[in-house]
Amino acid sequence: MGTAMAVLLARSGHEVWLWARRPEFIAELAGSRENARYLPGVPLPEPIRLTSDPEQAARGSDLIVAAIPSSYLRATLRAVAGAIPPGVPALSVIKGIEQGSLLRPSQVIREELGPRPITVLSGPSHAEEIARGLPASVVVAGESPELNVLIRDELTTGRFRVYSNPDAVGVELGGALKNVIGVAAGICDGLGFGDNAKAGLLTRGLAEMTRFGTALGASPATFLGLAGVGDLITTCFSPFGRNRALGDRIGRGETLEQIEASTPKVAEGVPTCRGVDAMARQLGIEMPITAALREILFESKPPLEAVSELMERQTKDEWP
Amino acid sequence: MGTAMAVLLARSGHEVWLWARRPEFIAELAGSRENARYLPGVPLPEPIRLTSDPEQAARGSDLIVAAIPSSYLRATLRAVAGAIPPGVPALSVIKGIEQGSLLRPSQVIREELGPRPITVLSGPSHAEEIARGLPASVVVAGESPELNVLIRDELTTGRFRVYSNPDAVGVELGGALKNVIGVAAGICDGLGFGDNAKAGLLTRGLAEMTRFGTALGASPATFLGLAGVGDLITTCFSPFGRNRALGDRIGRGETLEQIEASTPKVAEGVPTCRGVDAMARQLGIEMPITAALREILFESKPPLEAVSELMERQTKDEWP
Repeated sequence: MGTAMAVLLARSGHEVWLWARRPEFIAELAGSRENARYLPGVPLPEPIRLTSDPEQAARGSDLIVAAIPSSYLRATLRAVAGAIPPGVPALSVIKGIEQGSLLRPSQVIREELGPRPITVLSGPSHAEEIARGLPASVVVAGESPELNVLIRDELTTGRFRVYSNPDAVGVELGGALKNVIGVAAGICDGLGFGDNAKAGLLTRGLAEMTRFGTALGASPATFLGLAGVGDLITTCFSPFGRNRALGDRIGRGETLEQIEASTPKVAEGVPTCRGVDAMARQLGIEMPITAALREILFESKPPLEAVSELMERQTKDEWP
Repeated sequence: MGTAMAVLLARSGHEVWLWARRPEFIAELAGSRENARYLPGVPLPEPIRLTSDPEQAARGSDLIVAAIPSSYLRATLRAVAGAIPPGVPALSVIKGIEQGSLLRPSQVIREELGPRPITVLSGPSHAEEIARGLPASVVVAGESPELNVLIRDELTTGRFRVYSNPDAVGVELGGALKNVIGVAAGICDGLGFGDNAKAGLLTRGLAEMTRFGTALGASPATFLGLAGVGDLITTCFSPFGRNRALGDRIGRGETLEQIEASTPKVAEGVPTCRGVDAMARQLGIEMPITAALREILFESKPPLEAVSELMERQTKDEWP
């Protein structure tokens, strides 16, 4: 996603420094002018310069874009914090929630990089498609309306449509919560269920995402938008989705330990499920799908048994 | 869908008469005990009896289930109205809107069959999957809360979960409007766009469905539910979707005339687009996707040009 954002910004005429931690990786990118591991076939346009030196990357910049998996976010930021000029606005494209603290990425950024305007970009935005110039619509949200509108207008092209939304909490929570339902949707696929079941799961998943978000101060309308239902749909249907793919393997009978031993990629939905489930129980928010997923992932409940229990709960009104 | 409902009701222990207009078709079903044309491979359970005589079907019944494409609804009902006992409740599983009058199916049923309690069943419910016993969640809505709850409890099984919803207008409009967005989603597929674009289209499509529904008195929550986003998702992703398939062919360059000449099946989204677009303009409801689809279907606008115009509109806040 970091590379895709660099490509997008370079295409719309901005000077971009792309930073990564490991000098070998930067040397590889510089040699091939391509991120062969994550975005094969997408050449890096000329205005993208490469460095593993955070000072070189951040010096004189007007905007810092943070694209770091949430589990490495705090440690990575702490290592580079001294190089980031104070006050420069930050744009987070991170979707997840910090384990333990349960903080949103923008909160971790503020804690580690100090006070500065922070905006979050979310919505259905698989990096592969953005980098290839396929059409997408996304949303930006943060406390500073001026920064939101500036980023919206600088990023918008004929193929990339950016909406602004004042609800920063909802936009950021949507990006984290959808990964939990993405794992559950993969389980549905792995069990061989059809589109009716999956659409039902997404709908009831969206209802519990909305309940959780509004309990934490988000606006329900955000969950009806690009960072809510929009991102949820891509996560649950796209062949690129790591969370869906992990769930699919669970549905076919593998255990979480087996999968984690065989794949190096992070599926954000797994730690997010644990964190959200704990917080929901603490706050008394009804989240039956998240709870069922916790039992499947961490308590060895067979997926089919968990689904049957969900389907057989007392029938009721759709909206309480 | 009529056959699938008969199978579902028979499986939960009800006596069912399945009526169809043409005696040859009923003879075919009676011979093979299978609806080979629409539900091949699903045997009709013993408690389903077959007839082309409306009096034989309706005599002594506790519930009339109406499963007739909206374009044939009024004429079919008018032909059998004399055989339907007064006052017996009706359940509509029809998704669409009447051309010309722009009436919802439940309104047409009331006009043709006279006053009786009417409930609507909607949600992500492809007949093929229901008949095969795959899990599904749906919603029932109507003016009589008692009838809603009765139907909910009679239909619910471990594999078929039924919610009730008091918003009859929203549930019925959701089922009609999603077909319009389904055609547009197919066009996205036919143009070779990715999941980001399609999820963006569904999200903005849901926003305009909600605007239209609330202008007509529906509750916005219904569009966040099974009859809104849930059904929209299946319509836009399922391989069974006629509306999506028609849009796909349009996206690949065929015209509506060419497609209608080559396929006998009704894609409800086509007449619904025309009707909804007319009503939206009359009432001043902003529906840019429906309007773009009207231009593509009926005014020969190239799909790619219509998409570019949608993407290049002035950027703005996600929710006005």
